[in-house]
Amino acid sequence: MREFELLQHIYDANPSLSPSVTLPPGDDMGALRLSGHNILVTVDQIADQVHFDLKTTSLERIARKAITRNLSDVAAMAARPVGAVCAAALPRSMSSVDATRLFDAMRQTAQHYACPLFGGDTTLWDNPLLLSVTVLAEPWPGIAPVLRSGAKPGDVVCVTGALGGSLEPIQRDNRQYIHHLDFEPRVELARLLAERVTLHAMIDISDGLGRDLAHIARASHVSASIFANQLPISPAAKQAAARLNVPPWARAISDGEDYELCFTLSSPDAQKLPESILGVPITRIGQIGPAAIHPVLLQVDDKQIDVSDRGWEHST
Amino acid sequence: MREFELLQHIYDANPSLSPSVTLPPGDDMGALRLSGHNILVTVDQIADQVHFDLKTTSLERIARKAITRNLSDVAAMAARPVGAVCAAALPRSMSSVDATRLFDAMRQTAQHYACPLFGGDTTLWDNPLLLSVTVLAEPWPGIAPVLRSGAKPGDVVCVTGALGGSLEPIQRDNRQYIHHLDFEPRVELARLLAERVTLHAMIDISDGLGRDLAHIARASHVSASIFANQLPISPAAKQAAARLNVPPWARAISDGEDYELCFTLSSPDAQKLPESILGVPITRIGQIGPAAIHPVLLQVDDKQIDVSDRGWEHST
Repeated sequence: MREFELLQHIYDANPSLSPSVTLPPGDDMGALRLSGHNILVTVDQIADQVHFDLKTTSLERIARKAITRNLSDVAAMAARPVGAVCAAALPRSMSSVDATRLFDAMRQTAQHYACPLFGGDTTLWDNPLLLSVTVLAEPWPGIAPVLRSGAKPGDVVCVTGALGGSLEPIQRDNRQYIHHLDFEPRVELARLLAERVTLHAMIDISDGLGRDLAHIARASHVSASIFANQLPISPAAKQAAARLNVPPWARAISDGEDYELCFTLSSPDAQKLPESILGVPITRIGQIGPAAIHPVLLQVDDKQIDVSDRGWEHST
Repeated sequence: MREFELLQHIYDANPSLSPSVTLPPGDDMGALRLSGHNILVTVDQIADQVHFDLKTTSLERIARKAITRNLSDVAAMAARPVGAVCAAALPRSMSSVDATRLFDAMRQTAQHYACPLFGGDTTLWDNPLLLSVTVLAEPWPGIAPVLRSGAKPGDVVCVTGALGGSLEPIQRDNRQYIHHLDFEPRVELARLLAERVTLHAMIDISDGLGRDLAHIARASHVSASIFANQLPISPAAKQAAARLNVPPWARAISDGEDYELCFTLSSPDAQKLPESILGVPITRIGQIGPAAIHPVLLQVDDKQIDVSDRGWEHST
């Protein structure tokens, strides 16, 4: 059983929920309406040997990722993070000093993004480290949460930043940079985007562009065509592609853990987009069409490839 | 390192938090103020071999406990649960049918307590099952959240239900009942209590009465004296005590996972309490005095025993 299939089942089996649930499972965050106020919630976990390697990764980097991964979901809704809680399952062998380092780094990361860590639960056990973080968010004033389901035929598809190579260590500013650990969640960028244009649909790229854009296509009952020669490809993806002797677009489409935003908007609104926001490039990579058998087709030279299931699967 | 020490450190090290955090770590729930509205949040996790045994416990019981444990924290604040999200780390060997049973049972339990499960995250891994559930709550109209820190010298100490023997299987209504799995979270009872009297301090008994009442004593800068001959002792605790040849009060004070409420209130308010609410006995067990070296003393015959550290420790 794969993660995606299981999640899909859970979403499909979703029964009639309370009317207070304004956003059921199936988007980057769920939402509740309380006394007329929308509260967005996301939960995400990272585990040793699945999402990081405790033997080779500093506790500070692990702690940071536990928080920023959730903040990327907040960015995907164009929402404002307001607070976090963490459930930590710590290996009994972890020293008290290391546990403190881990919590201090989570707290500092959360504070840095104006998302205070204000609660938690700790269990000691004889198994690997697992951190499960829940982040609460609310809409920015005047900005409705952006869902996966609003893409329309004729929309332009864009991405932020550069894709691929998230596991590949590269040198940047004289230090080692590994994207899946060190990425910057696009919270502020998403807000600036949403203030400037009407975003029809948005997702953060965690599973890989192919699979995540397919989430938008399926939720919106549309299809997407994207172009290999328009993809912004990261230096790390190029480095990995050269080493593995594969085309760089293959890495950009499927590596996953990009934590960049993929969004769609009307063609007139796309004209208003600057080349970059906060120093992060904004790139048109394709367009939205009517629903089709293949949710996401990639044009490579004169061939079309179905990339709807191209993504990273931790469990396969 | 023990769980309690680690949590204590995390609470002690708590830096200046954002003014939106109205209840920092250290109570049964944390709280955030959003647009004038108080949101309470708790997170709790249960793990195979720590909080249950997957080999001998049905998935339905495990799923139920994952939700009800958090609802007990909501009860401890006398608040109203509004929604839940769950992060599940599933052993890769678990079948899709079993994963579905688990999620269906969590969803049904959550729905039963008017606390819809509206989001989640699933990871497959080669380690034991771990479920981490976050529950959001809000105050009932006109009822402020009850903290651990409000106990006053002269207060009466009460508990709901009967204590001890939470791990001991007993026969009840012609079926096997194991309290730590099958308990009823006291959400509605807490609301009825808070409507009738002014609760000064409250906690749910998860670590054991001795240790949990010590949490109230320390947070309130008071001490507590309780009486062994006034403790309501469960049939399961008596059964376990007879088998182990120990006094029944020893089981009632330290078994943990009672998920009953321990609260303090003024003596005049204590006069107003009925003998039971919703069929659950309410029992006076002692009183609050000024701060003292021993936060919680138990009177047994003519001896006083410090029971401040008597509780269940998963990790020792």
